Amino acid sequence: MTRYKLTIEYDGTDFVGWQRQDNGPSVQAALEAAVEKFCGETVALQAAGRTDAGVHALGQVAHLDIAKPTDAETLRDAVNFHLKPHAIAVLGADAVGPDFHARFSATKRKYIYRIINRRAPLALERGRAWFVPQPLDVDAMDRAAGGLLGHHDFSSFRAADCQAKSPTKTLDLLKVSCDLDEIRVVAKARSFLYHQVRILVGTLKQVGEGKWDEADVAAILTARDRRVAGPTAPAYGLYFCEVEYK
Amino acid sequence: MTRYKLTIEYDGTDFVGWQRQDNGPSVQAALEAAVEKFCGETVALQAAGRTDAGVHALGQVAHLDIAKPTDAETLRDAVNFHLKPHAIAVLGADAVGPDFHARFSATKRKYIYRIINRRAPLALERGRAWFVPQPLDVDAMDRAAGGLLGHHDFSSFRAADCQAKSPTKTLDLLKVSCDLDEIRVVAKARSFLYHQVRILVGTLKQVGEGKWDEADVAAILTARDRRVAGPTAPAYGLYFCEVEYK
Repeated sequence: MTRYKLTIEYDGTDFVGWQRQDNGPSVQAALEAAVEKFCGETVALQAAGRTDAGVHALGQVAHLDIAKPTDAETLRDAVNFHLKPHAIAVLGADAVGPDFHARFSATKRKYIYRIINRRAPLALERGRAWFVPQPLDVDAMDRAAGGLLGHHDFSSFRAADCQAKSPTKTLDLLKVSCDLDEIRVVAKARSFLYHQVRILVGTLKQVGEGKWDEADVAAILTARDRRVAGPTAPAYGLYFCEVEYK
Repeated sequence: MTRYKLTIEYDGTDFVGWQRQDNGPSVQAALEAAVEKFCGETVALQAAGRTDAGVHALGQVAHLDIAKPTDAETLRDAVNFHLKPHAIAVLGADAVGPDFHARFSATKRKYIYRIINRRAPLALERGRAWFVPQPLDVDAMDRAAGGLLGHHDFSSFRAADCQAKSPTKTLDLLKVSCDLDEIRVVAKARSFLYHQVRILVGTLKQVGEGKWDEADVAAILTARDRRVAGPTAPAYGLYFCEVEYK
């Protein structure tokens, strides 16, 4: 058996999320079916992160073990061939050692959240970014984001059905910037709580609207209560970008 | 009557093109219907450029005359409201003088063509860029593009059914650049022949693959024969970006 690391891009729109589920098509199931068509083996992919329905990926990472002798480039091209017509692409495949685990070996995960801030609804970016028509103060959002960096109990930014053992995480990066009418929130941490990035973005949007300021966001963090934070931002603005390994 | 200039974004995927046609939904018809819902008037939009089926717009410009007293912001928001669920958005509306003509007053038109150059098929950018798996030499493409600048007979880069009176145009800008795996071709001129940008891109792609060099492209220009140029690049990589007026 050889273990391969796959780097994967997908459009989350038509999937129930990464994970195989009974209620609709998943990215995992589509990939596993494509691998099986190539090598005839039933495989179980392990991913760095289980993205929700509608969440996109520019650099999801997963690993799998296959017995068929092949090379990484052939595996990549063959899986891409069998993935058609799904909006999933294997950007790269690498042979890795048996100790590599896409989820447990990951040291950093990076997400980007895209907001388009303008009066006109979205035509080209529909389903690809959150449309926010009311003007947002990007500097205020970035200042409030800075106050959330570091090692904290993020219970206020954790969905009710989060299965993580501890609500304590270290947020390494939370940066808000803009380019023309697009606002980007970049978040980086070893790992995140369930819906953490989307609740952070929903909270920062309230700051952008002037409803809250830095001190309010600091108080929300201290409260450790999901009910005091902002709404969960829509899934379709979120992109799972990159995973770092040792 | 007041004349308004509209700046328009659309996803060309589901349209037969800008122009009203019998064989399917057009951007023009969708916009005219939305205006009529707002003001009860039957209007005829005049556009800066008649984009083909599948071609996108980031900044198409059109004008219309309406009798109903309103202001530009209300017009923009109302038309956007009535446009739902079409993937069309009015980015801006401005009241202009009766001499303004979206097509005839235009002094420059700018297009961008997007190529994604990598082994893996497109997931997120499908229908938004041309997928080219064979490696392209961007510097060679840009050098060949430079040789096409200026005032020339562009018959070699003109579709058979082009209705322009003269094949002579002045190409002000044709620049090829890349950022990671995305190659962008930017073209600017007072006006273009039918399919000119797409045939230019299809020809530059042959250069990128090493099939032709600068001298070959210069010879293609001189030949004034569509049959010697490259294939027409797909519509879905093309974006009508910007129109300049006096």
